[in-house]
Amino acid sequence: MEVSTATEQKSLLATLAPGKRTRLRRLLFEFGPGNGTLLLLPIDQGIEHGPRDFFANPASKDPEYQFHLAAEAGYSAIACQIGLAEKYYPDYAGQVPLLLKINGKTDIPPSDEAFSPCNGSVEDAVRLGADAVGYTLYVGSPSQDRDLAQLRQVRQDCDRFGMPLVVWSYPRGSAVKAKGGQDSFYAIDYAARMAMEQGADIVKLNLPKPEAHKDSPAPYDEIDVSQEEAVNQVVSSAGRSLVVLSGGSKIDDDKLLDQTRLIMEAGGSGVIYGRNVWQRQHSEAMAVVEQIKEIMLASVRRIP
Amino acid sequence: MEVSTATEQKSLLATLAPGKRTRLRRLLFEFGPGNGTLLLLPIDQGIEHGPRDFFANPASKDPEYQFHLAAEAGYSAIACQIGLAEKYYPDYAGQVPLLLKINGKTDIPPSDEAFSPCNGSVEDAVRLGADAVGYTLYVGSPSQDRDLAQLRQVRQDCDRFGMPLVVWSYPRGSAVKAKGGQDSFYAIDYAARMAMEQGADIVKLNLPKPEAHKDSPAPYDEIDVSQEEAVNQVVSSAGRSLVVLSGGSKIDDDKLLDQTRLIMEAGGSGVIYGRNVWQRQHSEAMAVVEQIKEIMLASVRRIP
Amino acid sequence: MEVSTATEQKSLLATLAPGKRTRLRRLLFEFGPGNGTLLLLPIDQGIEHGPRDFFANPASKDPEYQFHLAAEAGYSAIACQIGLAEKYYPDYAGQVPLLLKINGKTDIPPSDEAFSPCNGSVEDAVRLGADAVGYTLYVGSPSQDRDLAQLRQVRQDCDRFGMPLVVWSYPRGSAVKAKGGQDSFYAIDYAARMAMEQGADIVKLNLPKPEAHKDSPAPYDEIDVSQEEAVNQVVSSAGRSLVVLSGGSKIDDDKLLDQTRLIMEAGGSGVIYGRNVWQRQHSEAMAVVEQIKEIMLASVRRIP
Amino acid sequence: MEVSTATEQKSLLATLAPGKRTRLRRLLFEFGPGNGTLLLLPIDQGIEHGPRDFFANPASKDPEYQFHLAAEAGYSAIACQIGLAEKYYPDYAGQVPLLLKINGKTDIPPSDEAFSPCNGSVEDAVRLGADAVGYTLYVGSPSQDRDLAQLRQVRQDCDRFGMPLVVWSYPRGSAVKAKGGQDSFYAIDYAARMAMEQGADIVKLNLPKPEAHKDSPAPYDEIDVSQEEAVNQVVSSAGRSLVVLSGGSKIDDDKLLDQTRLIMEAGGSGVIYGRNVWQRQHSEAMAVVEQIKEIMLASVRRIP
Amino acid sequence: MEVSTATEQKSLLATLAPGKRTRLRRLLFEFGPGNGTLLLLPIDQGIEHGPRDFFANPASKDPEYQFHLAAEAGYSAIACQIGLAEKYYPDYAGQVPLLLKINGKTDIPPSDEAFSPCNGSVEDAVRLGADAVGYTLYVGSPSQDRDLAQLRQVRQDCDRFGMPLVVWSYPRGSAVKAKGGQDSFYAIDYAARMAMEQGADIVKLNLPKPEAHKDSPAPYDEIDVSQEEAVNQVVSSAGRSLVVLSGGSKIDDDKLLDQTRLIMEAGGSGVIYGRNVWQRQHSEAMAVVEQIKEIMLASVRRIP
Repeated sequence: MEVSTATEQKSLLATLAPGKRTRLRRLLFEFGPGNGTLLLLPIDQGIEHGPRDFFANPASKDPEYQFHLAAEAGYSAIACQIGLAEKYYPDYAGQVPLLLKINGKTDIPPSDEAFSPCNGSVEDAVRLGADAVGYTLYVGSPSQDRDLAQLRQVRQDCDRFGMPLVVWSYPRGSAVKAKGGQDSFYAIDYAARMAMEQGADIVKLNLPKPEAHKDSPAPYDEIDVSQEEAVNQVVSSAGRSLVVLSGGSKIDDDKLLDQTRLIMEAGGSGVIYGRNVWQRQHSEAMAVVEQIKEIMLASVRRIP
Repeated sequence: MEVSTATEQKSLLATLAPGKRTRLRRLLFEFGPGNGTLLLLPIDQGIEHGPRDFFANPASKDPEYQFHLAAEAGYSAIACQIGLAEKYYPDYAGQVPLLLKINGKTDIPPSDEAFSPCNGSVEDAVRLGADAVGYTLYVGSPSQDRDLAQLRQVRQDCDRFGMPLVVWSYPRGSAVKAKGGQDSFYAIDYAARMAMEQGADIVKLNLPKPEAHKDSPAPYDEIDVSQEEAVNQVVSSAGRSLVVLSGGSKIDDDKLLDQTRLIMEAGGSGVIYGRNVWQRQHSEAMAVVEQIKEIMLASVRRIP
Repeated sequence: MEVSTATEQKSLLATLAPGKRTRLRRLLFEFGPGNGTLLLLPIDQGIEHGPRDFFANPASKDPEYQFHLAAEAGYSAIACQIGLAEKYYPDYAGQVPLLLKINGKTDIPPSDEAFSPCNGSVEDAVRLGADAVGYTLYVGSPSQDRDLAQLRQVRQDCDRFGMPLVVWSYPRGSAVKAKGGQDSFYAIDYAARMAMEQGADIVKLNLPKPEAHKDSPAPYDEIDVSQEEAVNQVVSSAGRSLVVLSGGSKIDDDKLLDQTRLIMEAGGSGVIYGRNVWQRQHSEAMAVVEQIKEIMLASVRRIP
Repeated sequence: MEVSTATEQKSLLATLAPGKRTRLRRLLFEFGPGNGTLLLLPIDQGIEHGPRDFFANPASKDPEYQFHLAAEAGYSAIACQIGLAEKYYPDYAGQVPLLLKINGKTDIPPSDEAFSPCNGSVEDAVRLGADAVGYTLYVGSPSQDRDLAQLRQVRQDCDRFGMPLVVWSYPRGSAVKAKGGQDSFYAIDYAARMAMEQGADIVKLNLPKPEAHKDSPAPYDEIDVSQEEAVNQVVSSAGRSLVVLSGGSKIDDDKLLDQTRLIMEAGGSGVIYGRNVWQRQHSEAMAVVEQIKEIMLASVRRIP
Repeated sequence: MEVSTATEQKSLLATLAPGKRTRLRRLLFEFGPGNGTLLLLPIDQGIEHGPRDFFANPASKDPEYQFHLAAEAGYSAIACQIGLAEKYYPDYAGQVPLLLKINGKTDIPPSDEAFSPCNGSVEDAVRLGADAVGYTLYVGSPSQDRDLAQLRQVRQDCDRFGMPLVVWSYPRGSAVKAKGGQDSFYAIDYAARMAMEQGADIVKLNLPKPEAHKDSPAPYDEIDVSQEEAVNQVVSSAGRSLVVLSGGSKIDDDKLLDQTRLIMEAGGSGVIYGRNVWQRQHSEAMAVVEQIKEIMLASVRRIP
């Protein structure tokens, strides 16, 4: 299968209005690894999973841990929700940019009709000095009616305030399961395009599984691609929107670094690593972030 | 069955308020084939189907492909949603009119209770310099309550801003299936009238199947009409609203051109061809558009 | 069963605020048969039934047919929805009053939980120069929560703008079926009172079946009344609100005229005849309207 | 079981803001029996039951009957909904206070998830010169989410406009049935407290059945009280909110008068008698009201 | 399992905006036991349970009882809903701070999809001179969509008005039952974090059961902690938000006092005791509150 190289995309920044451009440049060039890349630290697991993720490293239960790490290790931004932003970000204002995630939910009820309600607003983000807003979209959920309508309001507010919009674009729900699952190439590829079409400036995706899945619609039921080609394709489906990919649950360090290189070389603009970083002691976390940043800068292909 | 000829309809433009008239004249006379016709290029398949439609011509995955084609081949307008309009239309502003489609959904969940939520607004369209707004109405869906209420708001905003309203009027849902299906003459004819009655200036329909269907209400369960008569009827049911018909999935070129002629001769005001055009190389696409435009101008009957 | 005569009701007009009084007097005295009567032409079948009602007289598919007929034959008002009002009424403004019907739905899905969403507003009616607003209320539907709440907003806007409110009061839904059906005396009588209690100035009812129905609540399960008594009762249940009754599907002319006389003598303020009039050639339609008007004026008892 | 006497309650009027106090004093002292009592005439049966309640006395079908009676017999207020208030109250403005009931529903669908939507507003009440607003709350209904949210808005508007709030507090729905039923001491006692806690100034209750019900929560499953003790308890549960009790369907006159005495002696502030009064000829109705008023004044204990 | 001590948390007050700080300081230092502690008296049982809780001490049915007690015994605040606040708080204004609870529901319907609708607003709280607002969040309920959206509005209003936000964070609903139940360490720990992440300044929790539950997600299915460790953990999960714990139904006095000590020593900022206090005679209630306060001051570890 022929794929166009993602670096052919025109510049995103060139299309953005001044407010968005000003804020996004901070993340891409002034903080983090720089050179047009994004290294994001997410600390929304307390909402999405509960405190269970903190047992691996008890110190990580205190949000101070992540805020301090994000600032000291030089992340492009820390992504958290309203409670943490109001109570912990003030001490780090100006030291690391804030990406205010404005919707979320617990994982206690089943996710067949997944929907993530807003607990914050773009106006909250402006008030708190954030440089970007995050929104989780459950692509293909039977609740997509409400989800797209809610996202519309967020997108319009982002346009109004010049606030960059980062969409966590996650295939989810019973219908997704029936067509190959939430990690299938089909589903992730759809999610990439969907987020861009809804107005995302940055799309956050999970790594797609490269194998064909017989239940996915054609041609996804028959095409096998390499992991890198799959990432390249989903980056390409997101068009001018930048793409960051996530690590998910903790994996082996070598794998983490290899994956980072692959993502960047396939046209990704960065990575969002949470548990893989903060589920370890501070010094170890600092060390691995340093390695990640080096690889990112060495492998970056996309010009934002 | 006796049918009145659609060209007897009085002028639509004469009834429109100045804002709508100004904008619609651009599409009908200043861009595209002209002479009161409409040749529309839709690029909303990334939302409605996902990226799978782009595999036939990988270059088509980059929205640049369609924007460039629409401008160079001389379409009356390009129809897309907010994400593309914000990130790709600026480079083509003034070169091809924008028809901002403001609702959409994925096709991942079943469509028994189809509903398409708004992801944009008429105000977005005004801000982006669009000359028309598009809305998908699922006629006969069990969700019609929400759909008609949502359309009402869009229609009122169109009246307020002088923005022409194009309704994609699609029979859909379980009850439609039980009465002959979404392509039955009964269902398409109902959809044509429904869109006009809700305030559409232009109605986008799929080609009706001309055969009688035993499950449709009388007299549709017994009348057989020719394809041209069927189109003439649905155009007539839309009254003063102009009608454009679509091609759907890719078909043979001869068939496409014959169909174009039939549509125009039956009183249609134009066609909306997406996959039939952009699922091929640029030079081929340019060539087929040229043929379509010639046939449109040679066969047009309706005075808008 | 003793019944009071409807003509004992006090004057409706005397209780109305100036805006409502001004507009309603136009319908009752300045247009149509006059002398406090109402002859209404409905053309909302394109929404409620689809184009199938137009096959009996193909010319009737063009809304021009009904607008022209309403003006030429001298109706009190033409009742239609937003699409027709915007595109066809301008040519007849001042020649026949407009009654803007502001909600409607297709009859494609089942009506067990019938609800008719608004596609227009009282403000639309004001803008278009309408003299009344129409609203369909589905009395007894399991969706009554939404229906009554929606009607409340319409009623309040009517009070605000001095716009007469005409309620199409239709018993509908599964619970109505279980208690004698939508045409039972019980159901129509309830509908008459309900509309008046919600603030209707004019109530549009279907003809009640006079026979007792065993599934209706007492005493309706045991009382047999004549057709005239039944009409008189429902008129009486509507109190000071005027009542117009409808013809439904096309019936024999003699029956139509007899029914008109019965309605007027029983205290009705008029009739709303659509298919019975426009499902025939123009000259025939003109002739039958003339007969209806004569009978109305000869039989009118109610002082509005 | 020891019960405190209701007359120990402190004054309600003393806690009310000036607007509420002014209006409520009219009902308690200037109209009706006076001396701090309330005699209310409800005419909302046309909505809640339909016209069937009027057959016992055909004259009662004309709302004039109740308005005239309320004024002539000297009620504290007439309680009706928007349609009657707008069309019949103007003739009696100043002669009898208006209590505008602002929600209601038909009894056609089952009441397992009972909810009563607003068809009027506190602002309507202000415009019409009403001295109080009425709201039906279905305590324990599975629809309590919507009900309490709707009541909140009404309560806030009452606070804003200084309008006394009367809550018809009715246990209703499947869960109530499972715990002893809508007339059980448990359910009525809960309803009394609930209304007061939601901000009611006056609570309208049905007479509780004094017997213990095995399905009610402890201790209601075991306590037997006298009818007077039951009334005293529910009055006490309503705290500083005044309580009026209703008669329901027509009963024997002696029973009606005994019941009135019991209610007043148990701390009730009054009664709301509809069918028991207007389901009889005018002169008889006048006579029984006279008797009721005498008993009320002779038995009143509560200082409002 | 290693746990960090809660006293390591930084000061909450230092992070709060002036309005919140001013009001919260009143509760923590000027009223109640003082020294940064909170002793809250809840009187919302009339809504949440009905009057059944008052039979143990009939005097407690009169809200005067609790208001008087709260003021005389020196509570940090009394927590009640709008009806009581409007009718009973005025007499105690300035004598004891008001914590206005602004949502609530009856316990009559099942709680599988628990949701607590707002019956008051932050603006009501401001108007009534309250020093804090209370909100019940049902963590993990299938209705979390509505709940989090409703809380968002409350939280934003609290930010706008400088009003401290107290979240009653209760795991509830069918999915919670399936993962160990509403009192499991897993569920309470999640609830603590969730409330903090939604913007609570103070989190009200029930005492967690310290035993591992096999249906809880890892590692909660295997870790056994002491009661004190469990409390310490949930306090820690709430981060800079202060935590108060409740007593629930009435228990033995020794147990109550032991529990109070444990809570304070584990980092809790206070207790909220209702039935354990007011289900006894006034003098006894005064006495036990005195003991509670002494223990609180002797055991307090957390600096607010």
